[in-house]
Amino acid sequence: MDIVTPFQFSLVYNAFSFTFATMAAATAFLWLSRSQVAPAYRTALTISGLVTAIAAYHYYRIFESWTAAYTFGNGVVTATPFAFNDAYRYVDWLLTVPLLLIELVLVMRLSREETISKSVRLGSAAALMIVLGYPGEISNDIPTRVLWGTLSAIPFVYIVWELFSGLGKSIAQQPASAQNLVRKARLLTFASWGFYPIVYMAPYAGLTGGNVTTTIQIGYTIADIAAKAGLGVLIFLIAVRKSEVEDTDGRGYAV
Amino acid sequence: MDIVTPFQFSLVYNAFSFTFATMAAATAFLWLSRSQVAPAYRTALTISGLVTAIAAYHYYRIFESWTAAYTFGNGVVTATPFAFNDAYRYVDWLLTVPLLLIELVLVMRLSREETISKSVRLGSAAALMIVLGYPGEISNDIPTRVLWGTLSAIPFVYIVWELFSGLGKSIAQQPASAQNLVRKARLLTFASWGFYPIVYMAPYAGLTGGNVTTTIQIGYTIADIAAKAGLGVLIFLIAVRKSEVEDTDGRGYAV
Repeated sequence: MDIVTPFQFSLVYNAFSFTFATMAAATAFLWLSRSQVAPAYRTALTISGLVTAIAAYHYYRIFESWTAAYTFGNGVVTATPFAFNDAYRYVDWLLTVPLLLIELVLVMRLSREETISKSVRLGSAAALMIVLGYPGEISNDIPTRVLWGTLSAIPFVYIVWELFSGLGKSIAQQPASAQNLVRKARLLTFASWGFYPIVYMAPYAGLTGGNVTTTIQIGYTIADIAAKAGLGVLIFLIAVRKSEVEDTDGRGYAV
Repeated sequence: MDIVTPFQFSLVYNAFSFTFATMAAATAFLWLSRSQVAPAYRTALTISGLVTAIAAYHYYRIFESWTAAYTFGNGVVTATPFAFNDAYRYVDWLLTVPLLLIELVLVMRLSREETISKSVRLGSAAALMIVLGYPGEISNDIPTRVLWGTLSAIPFVYIVWELFSGLGKSIAQQPASAQNLVRKARLLTFASWGFYPIVYMAPYAGLTGGNVTTTIQIGYTIADIAAKAGLGVLIFLIAVRKSEVEDTDGRGYAV
């Protein structure tokens, strides 16, 4: 286990605790808000909350794994015999990344056929992207990391293409008040997902030891908060706007 | 306790954590989705969520039992004096397997008499199947495993016959938009349940030691995810489609 400085240990420790709290809070917000949107958008909020709930669970486990991997006492950090478990992130992403794309498709309320076909295609590409990234993540060898990172980039490029080409046409059919938000949700997904491969390649930038461990953990944590809790808030806003526009019988869904 | 390699230890460890998260997420999804289906289908979703909730509890216990059975430090796995508890799975199945068949019967919305008689017959056969399988599971002796496995197959064959013969007629009476999904649910149940006896007989295939432990744990875990969380999603989709078709007063149940 790479040794970290006391500052790095505390920074990562507090970032994990912060992220657990953020994800758990986002879950409560998204699930409690279900009753404020029209029934057609409730599954999108249910799934947005599932994503943050699954992430909250994994940040709890990641936090426990971090505190098991190091002892911080008398101002000194020492490594224990127990390795920090990198796999939790990949297990989390395998579940949450397909769900993130599905929540985006659901809130757009396409036809049933389009919803199913886009969910299946985007969800499968997302799962493939995660599976291909893992062998590189656990390797200390840079060429191996580059190889799997590149393979993992293929489904990522496909997803970006689907988001901007395939979903582009559907955005034009969204109500005017929601169009801009849907574009922002797409952009947030693109930008935050594009941040992961940058973090992934941190060892390539000449970082080593505790610096690379800290950069990767903090980097992934920031990206997770934006991609999951951040997207969840946008999904909620889109669902509220669309519920208002489509509220022809005056049930008064509103924030 | 059979010793496993560090790779096998981590694979099983992460698979158990993944399955706990999946089952807990499926539970939240199924219970939150109750309000999106007609009242007649809510019990099916309640019970689908019970199945995944019970499984989440047992995967938490199984995970704890796995980490108590081995120590993984400094890259080496050693067995502790504490045996991994195989019984959790059977206790789980004794509760969940009858419920899985009951959720399938409930979502079909048969007459009250048929619902009760099919639930009692299928549920009892399922419980008998599990009880007969256990003495073989805990035996290290292959003939004993074969004997109890064969006895356990008798109620299994009866269940398959009921699913394809008895329920077959009822499927023809389902609304057109749901028929295909009901057939898929029946096929998923048959295929995933048929996977358990294959895993059960892993020691018969010449696997020994850590290989047999890993194969059995990963095999049962995959089968559990398909049979419980996978079936739950299908039950939800069937309930939504049927609610839409039967929604004559325009309450607008929808996804």
